[in-house]
Amino acid sequence: MKISARNRLKGKIVEVKKGTTTAHVKIDIGGQVVTAVITNDSVDELGLAAGKSAYAVIKASDVMVGVD
Amino acid sequence: MKISARNRLKGKIVEVKKGTTTAHVKIDIGGQVVTAVITNDSVDELGLAAGKSAYAVIKASDVMVGVD
Amino acid sequence: MKISARNRLKGKIVEVKKGTTTAHVKIDIGGQVVTAVITNDSVDELGLAAGKSAYAVIKASDVMVGVD
Amino acid sequence: MKISARNRLKGKIVEVKKGTTTAHVKIDIGGQVVTAVITNDSVDELGLAAGKSAYAVIKASDVMVGVD
Amino acid sequence: MKISARNRLKGKIVEVKKGTTTAHVKIDIGGQVVTAVITNDSVDELGLAAGKSAYAVIKASDVMVGVD
Amino acid sequence: MKISARNRLKGKIVEVKKGTTTAHVKIDIGGQVVTAVITNDSVDELGLAAGKSAYAVIKASDVMVGVD
Repeated sequence: MKISARNRLKGKIVEVKKGTTTAHVKIDIGGQVVTAVITNDSVDELGLAAGKSAYAVIKASDVMVGVD
Repeated sequence: MKISARNRLKGKIVEVKKGTTTAHVKIDIGGQVVTAVITNDSVDELGLAAGKSAYAVIKASDVMVGVD
Repeated sequence: MKISARNRLKGKIVEVKKGTTTAHVKIDIGGQVVTAVITNDSVDELGLAAGKSAYAVIKASDVMVGVD
Repeated sequence: MKISARNRLKGKIVEVKKGTTTAHVKIDIGGQVVTAVITNDSVDELGLAAGKSAYAVIKASDVMVGVD
Repeated sequence: MKISARNRLKGKIVEVKKGTTTAHVKIDIGGQVVTAVITNDSVDELGLAAGKSAYAVIKASDVMVGVD
Repeated sequence: MKISARNRLKGKIVEVKKGTTTAHVKIDIGGQVVTAVITNDSVDELGLAAGKSAYAVIKASDVMVGVD
């Protein structure tokens, strides 16, 4: 499936930590780490695990901008 | 202000494009480009412009994971 | 790409209306219509148009529940 | 209360699964199932349970579009 | 309709500004002003206008926390 | 860091409740209480606790409007 979300950041999974229903997945995208909070069901369905390649996918309207 | 959002990706603004009320801001974070859709008011208040340093800030619950 | 978003509702596009930077896309999913607000860039990249098949894709944490 | 969210998909709850603080609610909307992640507090306050009628409510800016 | 969104902040609309497809609605909730970005369609359907009472409705998973 | 999010509601934390991976933080903003769902990691990093001053930070595109 091709998706409208503007942001598809390619990287490698560095950690998958499951809670009761919710999992935290950390993806290294070129030196910076992105944390995704997704369902445990998604982790299982996609077979996510540390070391695998993955994309952090983010809708553009969910991105804010910060400055120092 | 320190903020709870897990993801603060450091980069450089490569484009700011204003619409009627909404702006698209593109930030290069180490070779990959993140697009943010924010208000024109925010662009003005933060003085965002191409060439400036900025962070793409994303709440972890807004990040999805994709695999090929 | 396979994506973690739990909700992928299959349907047919019934309307694409572009604004200055933002488009409204309406998808009929079995009699009920879902409205998506996405960028004009996404509309162009995916070639979205009325009559085409498409999915409304929604992260589970963005769905609320209402009762009468 | 009438709400601005464009998408109010009418259906029937098929599953409510509570975690420590967060619940997963599945609603069948005409053959397709929508998963909502909401707080346990909301489940209790609205009295959500399998078999009850409910709406999946989604802000239009949280809907993405996918194509095969 | 009763909705699962945890946050329903009661106030008074102080400004409605329409763009091409998207509107900015400002609601004063006890001295602090909340800005909502919604569709023009929602503004028309709900009859929103300055001076009217309204709620700012926000899903708890969309709220971040900041400290000085 | 200065952030583009339009809504920064100043208040005082009245409750922090941690789950397995996710925490619920309640902030009183002038008599109305806002609930934020954030990661336990954020609670620890920012040192959030009942009685402390804090802001509820919300992107304008995540705010809906309701009327009675």
